[in-house]
Amino acid sequence: MKLLRVGPAGNERPALLDEDGTLRDLSGIVADVDGALLGDAGAMARVREAAAGGALPVLDADGLRVGPPLGRIGKIVCIGLNYHDHATETGAAIPAEPILFMKAPDTVVGPDDTVLVPRGSVKTDWEVELAVVIGRTARYVGEDEDPLAYVAGYAVAHDVSERAFQIERGGQWDKGKNCETFNPLGPWLVTADEVADPQALSLKLWVNGELKQDGTTAEQIFGVADVVRYLSQFMTLYPGDVINTGTPAGVAMGQPDPKPYLRAGDVVELEIEGLGRQRQELKGA
Amino acid sequence: MKLLRVGPAGNERPALLDEDGTLRDLSGIVADVDGALLGDAGAMARVREAAAGGALPVLDADGLRVGPPLGRIGKIVCIGLNYHDHATETGAAIPAEPILFMKAPDTVVGPDDTVLVPRGSVKTDWEVELAVVIGRTARYVGEDEDPLAYVAGYAVAHDVSERAFQIERGGQWDKGKNCETFNPLGPWLVTADEVADPQALSLKLWVNGELKQDGTTAEQIFGVADVVRYLSQFMTLYPGDVINTGTPAGVAMGQPDPKPYLRAGDVVELEIEGLGRQRQELKGA
Repeated sequence: MKLLRVGPAGNERPALLDEDGTLRDLSGIVADVDGALLGDAGAMARVREAAAGGALPVLDADGLRVGPPLGRIGKIVCIGLNYHDHATETGAAIPAEPILFMKAPDTVVGPDDTVLVPRGSVKTDWEVELAVVIGRTARYVGEDEDPLAYVAGYAVAHDVSERAFQIERGGQWDKGKNCETFNPLGPWLVTADEVADPQALSLKLWVNGELKQDGTTAEQIFGVADVVRYLSQFMTLYPGDVINTGTPAGVAMGQPDPKPYLRAGDVVELEIEGLGRQRQELKGA
Repeated sequence: MKLLRVGPAGNERPALLDEDGTLRDLSGIVADVDGALLGDAGAMARVREAAAGGALPVLDADGLRVGPPLGRIGKIVCIGLNYHDHATETGAAIPAEPILFMKAPDTVVGPDDTVLVPRGSVKTDWEVELAVVIGRTARYVGEDEDPLAYVAGYAVAHDVSERAFQIERGGQWDKGKNCETFNPLGPWLVTADEVADPQALSLKLWVNGELKQDGTTAEQIFGVADVVRYLSQFMTLYPGDVINTGTPAGVAMGQPDPKPYLRAGDVVELEIEGLGRQRQELKGA
């Protein structure tokens, strides 16, 4: 299923996109698309049943804002330098184990919402990423377990990053990762059963119509299963948590000087095979 | 006022400790102690009025669990190496600007709840910290503004840290800061009007009865006001966000080998002047 949330920011209603591409209202069945829903097998079964029945009310998609496809996100854990080609372009060594940093859930906006270039920023950069949404509490997942059983679904994430804040301002990357609007998410949360192989998805990103990133999750150094198991040794993952699994080559930081960092007026579009497409206009904060 | 939340984990009710030390029920007046309350001047005025009236129902504190004094925390931003004496003991240079890392709100437990030593951990360390709770949305706070006007109150935080995860496992500190139960908070949220000077508070921490940290917020490299203004240039702070402002000298990492890292069975107690006292027993995860 393709679950989504539509309506004004902060007041979205749950919806689904059916197999015909028709937008249907889920608000009569569930309160929201969030960790409580994803972690509740009975509620998910009711949504599936309603979707299959074809009787859910149709929503007029015309002019309707698409919000992030997940409400009440608990935490967003991000994996850094997780693509062979991206590690190479930034001149970094291939990490021996996953590098972890965090974004606050309040950075999340809808897939087509405005992204703000922070005041004083001269190095705002793009990163298309496969987001993994957790559906079951994962705590010390063992070698004998399938970590993908903890995954509810997948979405497109834009891990917007300010490189000067991230790298040149004293310590820890989080400083360049948590600016307002820095995590567009969606349009859809595609349930895991519809993603045959999360390590075989193409990812693309364009700036002002020019293709900048053209990668595949096959290039991930640590695949989704490994990442879920690894993270669960250091923290507990809860339903409604999100993992941004890293970006392929092609970011501004990896290009020759003068690097083409984002400015107000730029338009970024990004897409992942089967997970939909985003489009953001950049504005000044 | 001293606001708190009492009752079973995940099902706490709002309360206050009045000037006589009597615990009183706030659940007839407000739904919770959270960002929505702190950001609502009218609701806060009703709480103050009810407190002054002396007619709030008395709660029997006997055997009642004290939870974290703040629900629905949005994000926890932490400042690293923010005390002169702590930077010195760890052999680190005095930071030129605040070092920022993050803890997920799901690491928060009550002040006297069990703290879990993660599986595989051999370097679980303690850190008493002054926590700042945000009461008004802070976004690009200017030099002409008083950053303390954005602060709703203060609390004791224990920024439990796994040093091997933090420092020896590839990149970013967040890996050693987000283990389950790693952020005891409370007992109280003391409103800002009762803290005359946040840069003149003594902080103490004991392990198994032995005093390990004995510091003062006067040693902070970047004081609370500077930290709030600084962070607001990199991210938006919302009511109900928490800032852990760093720890003074005396952590296990700063001591001679063999460093006395925490183990199951240890008891940590910590207190900050006017903000109350915590006591945690360590157990294996």
